[in-house]
Amino acid sequence: MTASGTAITNLMHSADPTALATKYLEESRAALQNTNATIRIVGFIATDDKPSVTYANATRKTFNTTGFKYELKKVARLDLETEILAANEDTSIHGIFIYFPVFNNQEDNYLRNLVTYTKDIEAGGSYWTRKMSANDRSATPGEIDKKALVPCTPLAIVKILDDLGEYKNIKNSRVTIFNRSEVIGRPLAMMLSNDGADVLSFDVNGPLRFEAGRPVETSVDRSKALSSSDFVITGVPSSSFHKIRNEELKSNCIAVNFASIPNFVDERPSRAKLFVPRVGPMTVAMCMRNSIRLYENFHQ
Amino acid sequence: MTASGTAITNLMHSADPTALATKYLEESRAALQNTNATIRIVGFIATDDKPSVTYANATRKTFNTTGFKYELKKVARLDLETEILAANEDTSIHGIFIYFPVFNNQEDNYLRNLVTYTKDIEAGGSYWTRKMSANDRSATPGEIDKKALVPCTPLAIVKILDDLGEYKNIKNSRVTIFNRSEVIGRPLAMMLSNDGADVLSFDVNGPLRFEAGRPVETSVDRSKALSSSDFVITGVPSSSFHKIRNEELKSNCIAVNFASIPNFVDERPSRAKLFVPRVGPMTVAMCMRNSIRLYENFHQ
Repeated sequence: MTASGTAITNLMHSADPTALATKYLEESRAALQNTNATIRIVGFIATDDKPSVTYANATRKTFNTTGFKYELKKVARLDLETEILAANEDTSIHGIFIYFPVFNNQEDNYLRNLVTYTKDIEAGGSYWTRKMSANDRSATPGEIDKKALVPCTPLAIVKILDDLGEYKNIKNSRVTIFNRSEVIGRPLAMMLSNDGADVLSFDVNGPLRFEAGRPVETSVDRSKALSSSDFVITGVPSSSFHKIRNEELKSNCIAVNFASIPNFVDERPSRAKLFVPRVGPMTVAMCMRNSIRLYENFHQ
Repeated sequence: MTASGTAITNLMHSADPTALATKYLEESRAALQNTNATIRIVGFIATDDKPSVTYANATRKTFNTTGFKYELKKVARLDLETEILAANEDTSIHGIFIYFPVFNNQEDNYLRNLVTYTKDIEAGGSYWTRKMSANDRSATPGEIDKKALVPCTPLAIVKILDDLGEYKNIKNSRVTIFNRSEVIGRPLAMMLSNDGADVLSFDVNGPLRFEAGRPVETSVDRSKALSSSDFVITGVPSSSFHKIRNEELKSNCIAVNFASIPNFVDERPSRAKLFVPRVGPMTVAMCMRNSIRLYENFHQ
């Protein structure tokens, strides 16, 4: 960590979240040692897709190194429903992680929502996304000391921007987000706008604007959105997305890509003051944080 | 109704479910008169899409003519979440109907699942689709006299095939279904295979086979599936779907299209013994049946 508090490694203006993730891993390690808890997580992988398998193995290793008891289970996709229901019932399991996509259709959402909210470390199920929509900060009604969970990737992005010293500028800033999924793009838009940003949210069906946590209709187009945005955050997993060209950006903006594929044409778009090409390690670190919170809220 | 019990109008071999729907509407009307209940349904429409508005108005009219108190509310899509939550709380409302697509992304599924299961007349929320996956026939645990709901369109298709005198042949038959949505294609595959059919289920991500209610992996292709199927049931709302050509079908099969657009090249594919070009009126009739069941289960 540098004197400025930045744990992120700046290489030119390209920021890698690995060092910041390490800082949070250390926090989780310390928390686990303090509580003396054995937190058992099961990760389900149901695909042979090479990047998914690599990611799953990396997650397993990181969780175990940090002090969790993380078991990665390879299951047939058609057994996943049964496995999730069994893991929900198994009181020795405190958290469940699923590597998506599995069926790559609506059934993935069905499976995601099969995980009981008390073990949903990604916080991607309706129980937690509804809390976020309602701006309800309590994990359970009436228990204000138990805090609600936030989905891992939106939380990771906020922490990265904060570590870069930029989150303090989010208020009154303009933000463009490409992705409005239920687990990442929409909660992120709600969070940033709750903190005072004017957020433009795009997906294949068009734009929405988020102000103070609430969406409003807008007809803004990509070009106007990008050229006026202080923060550009992208998470489009499709190769048919027209990658963002350097000249579309506002000078000195902050650009973040959380998609598994590059959403920017340039490796380091020069108009961006800071560029974060990936978020993955911080997502894993935030899932650990969620795992500890679930344990404290529901399993202690 | 003819002597054979068929209420469906056969025009050549093209079967229109309107007459059958009328039979079920009369059943609902009689049930409402018997119970002397005033069942109040609210339908939410959040789009200006002309076919959706037409469908919504037709539904409103049919429900009201049958004896329900059906109110159609035009709401802004960004108010839908608030409206659904208010309707959930309003004890004078017994059923909720939403006209999809609204956002045409994952948020539609979020909205669908916001409807409390006690008012979900389409039975499209996770509460009911999980029951179906688990082959759990009770609406609530331990109350075996209260029957679980089945999503309207799969139920409509089963009733149409039954009225045509063909459902008795479903056992040991081969069925191909194009559509594996959570609300129609997947529950339909489970139902038909539970009743003894060998079901091949296709979506853009490939095939699955359903045997005795459970999915198994398969590598069957479209051509083989179609040429060997006694029943072909389609519900692909996309114009990029390669419409089914007459010569792909097995002779004397039964063909059903429940998509809003034709999924067959020919208006009446001649190889099919019977062709059902639309299911819509029966879907509405089955939603009424569900409305009455919800009232009896949860609001009486």
